Amino acid sequence: MSLDELINQYYPAIENALIQTVALSNEIGLEELHGMMTYHLGWSGEGAGSAAAGKRIRPILVLLTTQAAGGKWENALPAATAVELIHNFSLIHDDIEDNSHLRRGRPTVWTKWGIPLAINTGDAMFTLAHMAIMEIENYTNKRITIEAVKILQTTCLRLTQGQHLDIFYEDQQELPVDSYWPMIQGKTAALISACTEIGALIADVEEMKLDAYRRFGRDMGLVFQLVDDILGIWGDASKIGKSNASDLVAGKKSLPVLYGLAQNGKFARRWLSGPILPDEVPELANQLESEGAKDYAQNEAERLTDSALFALQKAKPIGKAGLALTQLAHQLLNREI
Amino acid sequence: MSLDELINQYYPAIENALIQTVALSNEIGLEELHGMMTYHLGWSGEGAGSAAAGKRIRPILVLLTTQAAGGKWENALPAATAVELIHNFSLIHDDIEDNSHLRRGRPTVWTKWGIPLAINTGDAMFTLAHMAIMEIENYTNKRITIEAVKILQTTCLRLTQGQHLDIFYEDQQELPVDSYWPMIQGKTAALISACTEIGALIADVEEMKLDAYRRFGRDMGLVFQLVDDILGIWGDASKIGKSNASDLVAGKKSLPVLYGLAQNGKFARRWLSGPILPDEVPELANQLESEGAKDYAQNEAERLTDSALFALQKAKPIGKAGLALTQLAHQLLNREI
Repeated sequence: MSLDELINQYYPAIENALIQTVALSNEIGLEELHGMMTYHLGWSGEGAGSAAAGKRIRPILVLLTTQAAGGKWENALPAATAVELIHNFSLIHDDIEDNSHLRRGRPTVWTKWGIPLAINTGDAMFTLAHMAIMEIENYTNKRITIEAVKILQTTCLRLTQGQHLDIFYEDQQELPVDSYWPMIQGKTAALISACTEIGALIADVEEMKLDAYRRFGRDMGLVFQLVDDILGIWGDASKIGKSNASDLVAGKKSLPVLYGLAQNGKFARRWLSGPILPDEVPELANQLESEGAKDYAQNEAERLTDSALFALQKAKPIGKAGLALTQLAHQLLNREI
Repeated sequence: MSLDELINQYYPAIENALIQTVALSNEIGLEELHGMMTYHLGWSGEGAGSAAAGKRIRPILVLLTTQAAGGKWENALPAATAVELIHNFSLIHDDIEDNSHLRRGRPTVWTKWGIPLAINTGDAMFTLAHMAIMEIENYTNKRITIEAVKILQTTCLRLTQGQHLDIFYEDQQELPVDSYWPMIQGKTAALISACTEIGALIADVEEMKLDAYRRFGRDMGLVFQLVDDILGIWGDASKIGKSNASDLVAGKKSLPVLYGLAQNGKFARRWLSGPILPDEVPELANQLESEGAKDYAQNEAERLTDSALFALQKAKPIGKAGLALTQLAHQLLNREI
């Protein structure tokens, strides 16, 4: 059974579990609150469908990990639900914080319903995520439940710390290249790491394996974001589908940009003189590449990819899910979009 | 030992527990994020001090309940920390959602740091609250911990549901008088109810007592908000210290206002014709009173007060904390500010 076949098996179960958890928001007849959530998750409203829903990579990663670690993937559905809702809660709030009008090609929640209701809907989804993970007690035991809850909570704290740095960095003129890592560790890697760690925890693996799965997730999360940031400058913009064609126009302080700023060359002078216009992007991207930023970022991505795959080897994933997990890792680590 | 003496004993322990939990936000050197939290909690920045900190009524209620239910109040400190942080997270977000510039006489967090960082700081504080409650495992057991976490989570869902209704009601022209109750049940009573329920749970009382403490908290929470809303129209504005002198100017759809609107009289006609100006408040408040709204609201408050005190009786609180809890209930139920 290939990765695709496993995903086809997991996907409807994930959607079903998400639907059931999200329905809790509507208990007292709050159709609008519920509708805001189903819209954001891609199930309702104009443009609803799988493109609007996103790929559910995180919950799939949880289920794959549990199965690859020797557990039953069904036992991990509450955790899969939780991480997907944490991811989406943070998107609802990030879109407000970043003033983003589009998400997966559709108007963002705050653009449709206004900032007050959107903040509150994010809070409600955050709560539902924490409620969801409690359900693993029905499939495991109290110890694993409490451990999983704590991992999820620490992850949320890291998420907010990373987001704080992201916003804070916007107005900082002099940032060392390495200031990139704590930001993406929080914003992206913490949650991917929680997927593999909680997935393995539910299979009740020994501590050394748990640690290997955690490091696998963390390093894969770091690469995931780094590759995203490389593609945000040198990728094919049409495949990414963001509202800004380039992260250069958005002024995003990603690793290549921080590297370029540290060179104090032509790129840095242009960056510091004011916002980048869309017309300038192709030439400025070339300039940044010629100053070594793309090579530097790609080397870092390769280093972390090796580290992620080494950790996965240590984790000794088993069976068809183990093969599929390795396949997914390679896909995520070498993706073109 | 009187209520005041118990509060004097609890207060420093609460502050200490809060300080330790909030310090987790600064682990990776995020002084700004940490500083935003300490500012909001009244510990730092201009105007810091006990007036800026608030009264810590909720955590005091948790500790009092645990002790009155026969437990050790120290065991409830993590839960006390959690409810106070939930309360304050919701204030940080509510201030954005309600466009409030002042909170306890000081600029609100979003006014000082902007909306993006303020949303994120609220999210971080929400997370810290959930982390805090996990610590009761060190004082109780896994069963009680999981039960308490679930109560806190349901409470958070109710909070967001109540806040959704509050925002939703702003633009609704025809609301029945009773639409007030689900709103304040979520916005206020759910958290007060969690204080007494979790407090009693930590003392590991039997189910009937637990239920009595829960109902005591819920009804006291409803009265608490209702009295607040009565004072928001007919109280001495200077004692309340809000940025708007009157809830009438703020356009708040509280029980007296909904009652007045349902009368379809002079008050309703004025309300529906546009925003109320501060100059009009004294006369309009008199008009609303003459239409029976104040009597109606006060009767409801008395009915709920009786219900709260009846539930407290059923809970059979014991010892000095039991007496103090009864005293606190009377204070909260009959307060003038």
